[in-house]
Amino acid sequence: MSILVVGTVAFDSIKTPFGKAERCLGGSATYFSVAASFFTAVDLIAVIGDDFTDEDMSIFRGRRINLDGLQHVHGAKTFFWAGEYGFDLNVAKTRDTQLNAFAEFHPRLNERQRNAEVLFLANIHPELQMDVLHQAKRPQLVALDTMNLWIDTKHEALENAFRQVDMVVINEAETRQFMREPNLVKAARGILALGPRTIVIKRGEYGAMMITKDVVFAAPAYPLENVFDPTGAGDTFAGGFLGYLASRREHNDREMRRAIIFGSVLASFTVEKFSLDRLREITLADIQERYRDFRALTHFEDCEV
Amino acid sequence: MSILVVGTVAFDSIKTPFGKAERCLGGSATYFSVAASFFTAVDLIAVIGDDFTDEDMSIFRGRRINLDGLQHVHGAKTFFWAGEYGFDLNVAKTRDTQLNAFAEFHPRLNERQRNAEVLFLANIHPELQMDVLHQAKRPQLVALDTMNLWIDTKHEALENAFRQVDMVVINEAETRQFMREPNLVKAARGILALGPRTIVIKRGEYGAMMITKDVVFAAPAYPLENVFDPTGAGDTFAGGFLGYLASRREHNDREMRRAIIFGSVLASFTVEKFSLDRLREITLADIQERYRDFRALTHFEDCEV
Repeated sequence: MSILVVGTVAFDSIKTPFGKAERCLGGSATYFSVAASFFTAVDLIAVIGDDFTDEDMSIFRGRRINLDGLQHVHGAKTFFWAGEYGFDLNVAKTRDTQLNAFAEFHPRLNERQRNAEVLFLANIHPELQMDVLHQAKRPQLVALDTMNLWIDTKHEALENAFRQVDMVVINEAETRQFMREPNLVKAARGILALGPRTIVIKRGEYGAMMITKDVVFAAPAYPLENVFDPTGAGDTFAGGFLGYLASRREHNDREMRRAIIFGSVLASFTVEKFSLDRLREITLADIQERYRDFRALTHFEDCEV
Repeated sequence: MSILVVGTVAFDSIKTPFGKAERCLGGSATYFSVAASFFTAVDLIAVIGDDFTDEDMSIFRGRRINLDGLQHVHGAKTFFWAGEYGFDLNVAKTRDTQLNAFAEFHPRLNERQRNAEVLFLANIHPELQMDVLHQAKRPQLVALDTMNLWIDTKHEALENAFRQVDMVVINEAETRQFMREPNLVKAARGILALGPRTIVIKRGEYGAMMITKDVVFAAPAYPLENVFDPTGAGDTFAGGFLGYLASRREHNDREMRRAIIFGSVLASFTVEKFSLDRLREITLADIQERYRDFRALTHFEDCEV
């Protein structure tokens, strides 16, 4: 099955304790689509400005990413975000956000895009997410990400969006924040009660957790000696997760667990370098090898005492 | 193999967002020995005062816990700690510490105790830990826990202690703090470079990680809907971990991984009620059942893409 993703293509200026990068390529839809395209074809719905060069565009080339939905707004610049991380790489401090071309973003899906079977609504205004969802004809799987900004300012619209999707992919702190419930499992069950079949909780360097009505699955993050830049890790995770799922006939418990691991694998590469520099280098063989490393990291045997 | 543990038997006054308990039973050696005694016999080395009643003593009865080393200091009170947790249950705020009888604690091991094969030096002054270690004749496995207080005030003594043990069992934040290194894997390797074969890192609600020269193993914590009191979780973890290991002939990678899971299982019970109230209730069958739940929580299959 093919995936349609709506989100941002952006430039980021990033400072971490390990260095900085000025106006490097970023954006939720960029990370997502590159990660997902290792497993399946992706339709990218996003907007760019005049400053997005042919060299910037090269990240998408040679991959299964259809750019018909990448709209160029003339006379505007590309979405820009500046952020900084301290030693706790789980917490980003936003220094600047410039919507630019994104302010005029009103995506209209073409016929092929409207027939997408898997839909990922990356972190944008929940009403814009719903606008895209309602243009889709009969998606079999709809997943949504969000952020603290919308929880603070658009709680009702976000709750309405949660009610219309199959899957919520969300940060741990945002899960607690949305439900105003410090216990993570209770907060997750509160979101499931709104309608989604599955909630996937991103925990940064602590990995990921998937909760459904019947199952809880937890995976640690891959322990890295060198983490340079966590930007895009969550979107990369979502891309690996949904990309793998879309490539499989069944979405049963076994495949969902594997998908969480592939999401974790892809995210573990993203953080090893700034921007998409590491994602740009890796091959499917690298992904497969790190999947096996995850087995070695987490496997233990039955035991009777 | 039998275990000897040296640490505190204490009274705790605890406040969490979910309730409070006044002067309830606590102490590192108490939690450790009760947890370990599910798997093997334990020699408890600690000190109590006049206020430690026969009813308090009942926690040790009917278990494989030898109390020859539980010294009663007449005219003194039992070690007392008061602490409080906010919604982030990973962080305790100490309200009061009264050493009481513990101020006079100079343990002298008897002949049987000196022949202990497994030694757990719970979180006490590192020089006191070394005093006990040097009384032991030929322990096959020595593990040590510590806390931020000793990292701040006794760094050199603690480093000296690390050099003399096989295994360090330590909190995540303390690992980073001791090495002044924000990357956890690098910090852990720094401690291994001092001599220990194994470092076991306790991550609270994020589980545990074991790092050796050759292997990294990570396990999530059991996701609980009701966590009442995290006090003693780390010592319970150590008790389950070392108790299981001491009951096994081999301490190879397979058994070490299982031991981490048994430690996690025991700790997951401790936090479900105040004090040792939950540990008091459970049976080996409960432990075995939750071990199987951990398999279901973490298991995923190989996959070729």
